[in-house]
Amino acid sequence: MSDSHSQLRLVRAGIDTYQQPVVYMHRDCHVCRSEGFTALTRVLARSGDREVVATLNVVVDDHLELDVAALSEAAWTILQPVADAVAVFSHPEPPASAPALRAKVFGRRLGETDFLALMRDTVENRLSDIELAAFITASAGERLDVEETIALTKAMLAVGNRIDWGSGAVLDKHCVGGLPGNRTTPIVVAIVAAAGHRIPKTSSRAITSPAGTADAMEVMAPVALGLEAMRSVVEREGGCIVWGGSVRLSPADDILIRVERPLDFDSDGQIVASVLSKKAAAGSTHVLIDIPVGPTAKVRSAAAAALLEARLIATAQALGLGLSVLRTDGLQPVGYGIGPALEARDVLSVLRNDAAAPFDLCSRALDIAGALLDVAPGAVVGKGRAVASKLLDSGAALGKFLAICEAQGGFTEPGVAPYVRPVLANRTGQVKAIDNRRLAKIAKLAGAPRSATAGIDSRVRIGKNIQAGEPLFHVHARSPGELDYALDYASAHPDIVEIGTGQ
Amino acid sequence: MSDSHSQLRLVRAGIDTYQQPVVYMHRDCHVCRSEGFTALTRVLARSGDREVVATLNVVVDDHLELDVAALSEAAWTILQPVADAVAVFSHPEPPASAPALRAKVFGRRLGETDFLALMRDTVENRLSDIELAAFITASAGERLDVEETIALTKAMLAVGNRIDWGSGAVLDKHCVGGLPGNRTTPIVVAIVAAAGHRIPKTSSRAITSPAGTADAMEVMAPVALGLEAMRSVVEREGGCIVWGGSVRLSPADDILIRVERPLDFDSDGQIVASVLSKKAAAGSTHVLIDIPVGPTAKVRSAAAAALLEARLIATAQALGLGLSVLRTDGLQPVGYGIGPALEARDVLSVLRNDAAAPFDLCSRALDIAGALLDVAPGAVVGKGRAVASKLLDSGAALGKFLAICEAQGGFTEPGVAPYVRPVLANRTGQVKAIDNRRLAKIAKLAGAPRSATAGIDSRVRIGKNIQAGEPLFHVHARSPGELDYALDYASAHPDIVEIGTGQ
Repeated sequence: MSDSHSQLRLVRAGIDTYQQPVVYMHRDCHVCRSEGFTALTRVLARSGDREVVATLNVVVDDHLELDVAALSEAAWTILQPVADAVAVFSHPEPPASAPALRAKVFGRRLGETDFLALMRDTVENRLSDIELAAFITASAGERLDVEETIALTKAMLAVGNRIDWGSGAVLDKHCVGGLPGNRTTPIVVAIVAAAGHRIPKTSSRAITSPAGTADAMEVMAPVALGLEAMRSVVEREGGCIVWGGSVRLSPADDILIRVERPLDFDSDGQIVASVLSKKAAAGSTHVLIDIPVGPTAKVRSAAAAALLEARLIATAQALGLGLSVLRTDGLQPVGYGIGPALEARDVLSVLRNDAAAPFDLCSRALDIAGALLDVAPGAVVGKGRAVASKLLDSGAALGKFLAICEAQGGFTEPGVAPYVRPVLANRTGQVKAIDNRRLAKIAKLAGAPRSATAGIDSRVRIGKNIQAGEPLFHVHARSPGELDYALDYASAHPDIVEIGTGQ
Repeated sequence: MSDSHSQLRLVRAGIDTYQQPVVYMHRDCHVCRSEGFTALTRVLARSGDREVVATLNVVVDDHLELDVAALSEAAWTILQPVADAVAVFSHPEPPASAPALRAKVFGRRLGETDFLALMRDTVENRLSDIELAAFITASAGERLDVEETIALTKAMLAVGNRIDWGSGAVLDKHCVGGLPGNRTTPIVVAIVAAAGHRIPKTSSRAITSPAGTADAMEVMAPVALGLEAMRSVVEREGGCIVWGGSVRLSPADDILIRVERPLDFDSDGQIVASVLSKKAAAGSTHVLIDIPVGPTAKVRSAAAAALLEARLIATAQALGLGLSVLRTDGLQPVGYGIGPALEARDVLSVLRNDAAAPFDLCSRALDIAGALLDVAPGAVVGKGRAVASKLLDSGAALGKFLAICEAQGGFTEPGVAPYVRPVLANRTGQVKAIDNRRLAKIAKLAGAPRSATAGIDSRVRIGKNIQAGEPLFHVHARSPGELDYALDYASAHPDIVEIGTGQ
C-alpha cells in the first residue's frame, strides 16, 4: 500500500501535555478509517527524517479539518515539521523492550541488556505513560534488588550524555526530598569552590513548590547556561549553580519522573538510580547525599535511611563514585523566605555574615559543606566543617559566590516586591504548629515562582510566644490582585500558624 | 477564599480521550495561575451538583479564551453542564484508596475493604490511568492470590448493578481470548434457549478486530437494547444476544480494561475478576467458560489453562456460581467470513443446516452448547452434546433464533457487499500458514465493522493444495475506494497466505 493513503498535513495544536506526545485527528479522517485508529491508539508518525510514537486523541466536532493532524507541544518539538509538512501515520511495532517489561511485571529479575532496552525505548518515547507506570510499579520496593539497581543506573547513564571534566575530583551534593526554604546549595557551592574544589552544580526549577534552587539562583545570576557556557564558568571559578534543564543530564530519568511524581512511591531503587545516574552523567567523582529524616519528610525513620544509604553506597561503588551520606533534621522548614527572591536574600545574608541571617540555614549549609569537604580526596576527615566555617567567616565564600555569578553572566541584587502586607495573629499564645503546605500555597497565590519577588517572609517558629495583633508572616506580591488572592486565602485559613492559648 | 476566584465557563472541546476525563485551560487563565495548575495536574471540577476529577491539558496558543475551560467528551458526559454553566476548579483530595494502592504496590495482601475502596475510586474516576496501571501491575501474576481475586471480584460487583431474574437457573457462556471468526455465541444461545433454558447473553462490539459478536448479531437484529427491553425478550424467548454496552454490567471492569488492553498482561486474577464480576452482575447462575488453548492464543499451554481453571472455579464457588470450563483448540481461525455480515451468514448457514456451512464453526458451537447443557441443573452429564445436535438438526434452534431476533426488533437477512474481488494465488503449492493479523487488517481496510457487509471471505485452510491463479480469498467492500485500500494492502503483502512449493 502506498504511503499516500495514510498521510495528513501537520498543524500545531497548541496544547501542552507535559512531555507526552499526543496527536489529534478527526474521527472521520481517512487515516483513522483505514488504519482503524481510535482514541488512545498509539500511532507512529514519520515526517522528513524524524519520527515520533504518540497517543491519539480523536476530535469529534468540526474544530479540526479532515486532512490535517494536530500535534501537541511535545510531539511538535520531536517532529520539528517544516511549513506545510505532511506525516505518514501507521501502527508502531511493539517496543523492543516489551518482553523485558512483561518479565519484570511477572516478577523476574532483569539483566543489564533488559534495562538498556527499557531505557532506550523510554528516551525514544516508545513506551506510553501506562507502560512506564507498569515498569515503575514492577520495580517498587524490594522488587528491584541492588544488582538490578546498579544495572538500571548504568542503563540510564548509557542512553544519555556524560560530561567529561578531565582528570581530578569533581564534587557534588544532592538532597533527597527537600524542605521548604532549604536553600543551602548556593552557600555550599560557594564554600566548596572557595576551598579550591571543582563543583559544577545543576539544579531544578520549582515543579509544585514556590521556588526551586534554579529559581532562587536566577534572581542573582543567569542560570540557563548550555553545557559549553557551564564548562567555562567551572574552568574559571571551580563551581557553578545552573539550571539542569538546559543540560539534560539523564533524559531517561526526566521521563520516568514525569510518571513517578503523581504516583509518589518513593522507592529506594528508583531514588538511587535517579540521583546517581544524574551525578555520574554530570561527571561527578565525589558526592554527598543529604537525607533529611522526619515524620513528614520523604525518609521517615532512621531504619529507612539506613536501607537507602546502603543501596546508595553499593551503587556508587559499582559506578566508581565516591559517596557519603549526611542525615539531617527533617522536622521544620529552613530560613525565613519562601519564594525565589526571598530565599536569595536569605542566602546572601548568610554569605555576608549578617547578624540577622537565619541561623538554621547557615548551620545546615556548614554541615553539608563540611561533610562534602570530608569526602574530597586528600581531606583530613572530620576537619571539613571547621574549614567551611572559616571560609564563610572570612568572606572567601561570598567572594567566590559573587565571582561565580559574574562568570554566569553578572550578579544582580534580589529585588523587593512592591506590595507587602502582614498577616496578624488573632490571639496571644505560643506557636504550636505551622502548616507548611498551606504556607507554600499562599506564596504561590502571591505569584511565586513566576513573580520572582513574590512569596512569604516568616520569622515565626514552633515554640515562639506571640501577641494578638503581631505579624505572623508577611505576604510579598508584584500586583494588588495577587496580594488579594493570597490574603483572601490566608484569612479563610486562620490556623496556618496554630497558636495555643492554654498551658 | 471565595469560589469565584477559581471559576471558569464550560465549553465542549469535542475531543474523545476514551473515557478519560480531560479538561483544557489556557496557560494564562486565572485558575491555572492561582491554583498553580500545570499540564497533567489532576483537577476537581464542580458544576451544579455534579463533579469530576480530570487530567489537565494546558493550551498555550490563542485557540482557547482565558475565561473558559473546555471539557473532553468523557468529562462533558459526567458533568452534563447546562448552557453557559460555570465550574469551580480545585485540587482534589488524594483518593481514599491511595493507602491501599500503595500497600499493594509494596507487596502487601489486601482485604475486602481495600478492594472496595479501590473499585469505588475507579468508578468515580478518582484514579488516573497511571494509578490504574500501577494497581494492575501490582496485581499481576501471583501477586493476587485466590482470596484476593475473590475479594476483587466482589468489590467489582458491589460498585455496579446486578440484574435480578427471579428464581431458577440463568445460563451464560464466555470465551477467554477469542479467535478470528469464532462466532459461536448466536448458535449456542439459540440451542440452549431451544432446550428450554434461560440464557440472557450480552456481547461486545469490535474493539480492534473486524467484528465483535454484537456487530455480527446487529446485521440480523437490533442489539442496542436497554435493560428493560432485554428483560422482556428473555421473558418471552428464554434467550437474547444484546450489546453489553447499553447495559453497563461491570463499570469498574470497563475502566480497568481501558488500561489493561494496551498493557496486555493477561493476568489470571484480572481475567477471573473481570469475567466473573460481569457474569454475576448479569444474574447468571451457571456459566460455561470456553478456553481456546494454542501457541498464539491467549492461554498458551495446558498447564496455564489448568491454573486459570482452578482460580475460576474457586472464585465462582465463593460467589455461588455454578461453573464449568471447556478447553478448545486455539490453533486456527473458525468459519469462512471475517466481518459482521459475512460472520452472520456463517451463523445462519449453520443454523439452517446448509451443506456448505463451515464444519468447524458448527462442531465448536455444538461442543460449547453441549457442555453448557451439561452444567445446567438437572442435566444428565455427558448427554448435552447429543441434545444440542438434535435441536440443531431438527430446526428447533433456527426457529428459536428467529424468534429471538423477532423479539429484539425483527430479523433481517444479512446483506452482501456491492464490490467483491478475489485475491489470487501467485503460485501453485500447499498452504503453509495464514497471517490472521494481516487478514484482519484487510477486512478493516475494506470497511469492517463500520460497513457491515465489508470483510473477507476465506475458504483456504492450512494444508490445502492450491493452483496459481485460484482465489485465496475474496475482499468485500461497500465502496470502490475501500476495496482499493484493501487490495493495495493485499498486493503489498503477497505472503498473507503462505504457499509452499517444495515437498
